[in-house]
Amino acid sequence: MAAKDRLARINPILEWLKASPNRLNKIFVQKEKGHHRINEIIALARLNHIPVVFVPRERLDRLHPDHQGVIAFVAEKEYVELEDLLVKDHPAFLVILDEVEDPQNIGAIIRSAEGAGVDGLVLPERHSAGLTATVATTAAGALAHLKVARVTNLARSIEWLKEQGVWVVGADGESKSRWFEFDYTQPVAIVLGSEGYGLRANIKKKCDQLLSIPMLGKVNSLNVSAAAAVFFYEVVRQRLTAENYRNQRKNVKS
Amino acid sequence: MAAKDRLARINPILEWLKASPNRLNKIFVQKEKGHHRINEIIALARLNHIPVVFVPRERLDRLHPDHQGVIAFVAEKEYVELEDLLVKDHPAFLVILDEVEDPQNIGAIIRSAEGAGVDGLVLPERHSAGLTATVATTAAGALAHLKVARVTNLARSIEWLKEQGVWVVGADGESKSRWFEFDYTQPVAIVLGSEGYGLRANIKKKCDQLLSIPMLGKVNSLNVSAAAAVFFYEVVRQRLTAENYRNQRKNVKS
Repeated sequence: MAAKDRLARINPILEWLKASPNRLNKIFVQKEKGHHRINEIIALARLNHIPVVFVPRERLDRLHPDHQGVIAFVAEKEYVELEDLLVKDHPAFLVILDEVEDPQNIGAIIRSAEGAGVDGLVLPERHSAGLTATVATTAAGALAHLKVARVTNLARSIEWLKEQGVWVVGADGESKSRWFEFDYTQPVAIVLGSEGYGLRANIKKKCDQLLSIPMLGKVNSLNVSAAAAVFFYEVVRQRLTAENYRNQRKNVKS
Repeated sequence: MAAKDRLARINPILEWLKASPNRLNKIFVQKEKGHHRINEIIALARLNHIPVVFVPRERLDRLHPDHQGVIAFVAEKEYVELEDLLVKDHPAFLVILDEVEDPQNIGAIIRSAEGAGVDGLVLPERHSAGLTATVATTAAGALAHLKVARVTNLARSIEWLKEQGVWVVGADGESKSRWFEFDYTQPVAIVLGSEGYGLRANIKKKCDQLLSIPMLGKVNSLNVSAAAAVFFYEVVRQRLTAENYRNQRKNVKS
């Protein structure tokens, strides 16, 4: 991460926390550094769903020569709230990443999602790279156009989306149902897990439906960004086909 | 590229050219270095479709301390002939890359292709990274299982495939037909072009059909490896669906 993405010292970080909390990716705090204004930073960070990581002083020293026990990382783009992702003029099309940690994969997913007309992306506060410079570069301009919400509790966010009428579909290599065996003309959120481990058990349980992309050769999984593109454009295919069908019926009537 | 991927000096390179020409990616030859055995290397390379690049002596010096005017790059895997890609027990499923130069994209495409059950990949001799160590790493093990043919003249290879009954489909962002508006249960080869420029005009002309993946956001193209995954799994979807349909009909009959 380039140094321009870092903020050091108590005052500038407190200012950012008050002015633009949704631009902060995470905050490193020195272990056992008792200081009432650092406690204020921690409290404000938690209030704004910004991950706080306690690290040894040496780690901060390597990042900045004069940090006062605290360094914040600035995101490439402001995070929005989960409810801001729901657009009302068409069935929802959302993407949820569960522990996808590699910034290049997150960037590639953002690029394909924006191309497929996804309404927004949900990232968990923990175990995610956040919107770093690498994410922005790999997304090749798409990050500027895609809304990204950061949530504290992914399971609870999935519950909330279901209450709003969104069908939650999880990518799971072990499912017998194939990725195209679902009606994506409905409001939908697609959940993708980490490449090595897939979805966590509690997230899997929350999904309305689990779907697999069959592996027909000898390797046992796709890259998560390739799997994402396959899911996204199956949604597009079904919605375009349904639209054509509706238009044809309209023409027959008139 | 790691030094282990390089061969220097006239004798070892001549030996490789005679024993395993299909393992050589390309050969650097020093400009204006007249030597009859280097001419023999050039002649053998051309016979085996191995690209020869003439470079200044300084470039060779940086690659190897004692090169005798010639350095060869060893591929991660042996290339096969175009006809070896045609398997007879099912409709062909091939991928052709036209000037996709980035080794990470080639590796990612190989991984998705192997997962989708592609029979083989066609790479042009020129303007392609070849099967370097980076390609192999990004392919995450898939390169070992996917056949790759290297051809001198892509347009002529496409002609030949068409004569064998293979339908050649080109990915072209400007086409009005969508990527799913084609019957992929037929023998098919999918042609993907470079990300910046798409397919070359002469390759486009050779395709039976051009198809686009619509961009529904603000960015103007997918990453070529994401586009590849979308095409590959549309082939898989159609073939699985047709198979289900045939099986259902069989059940009704019995």
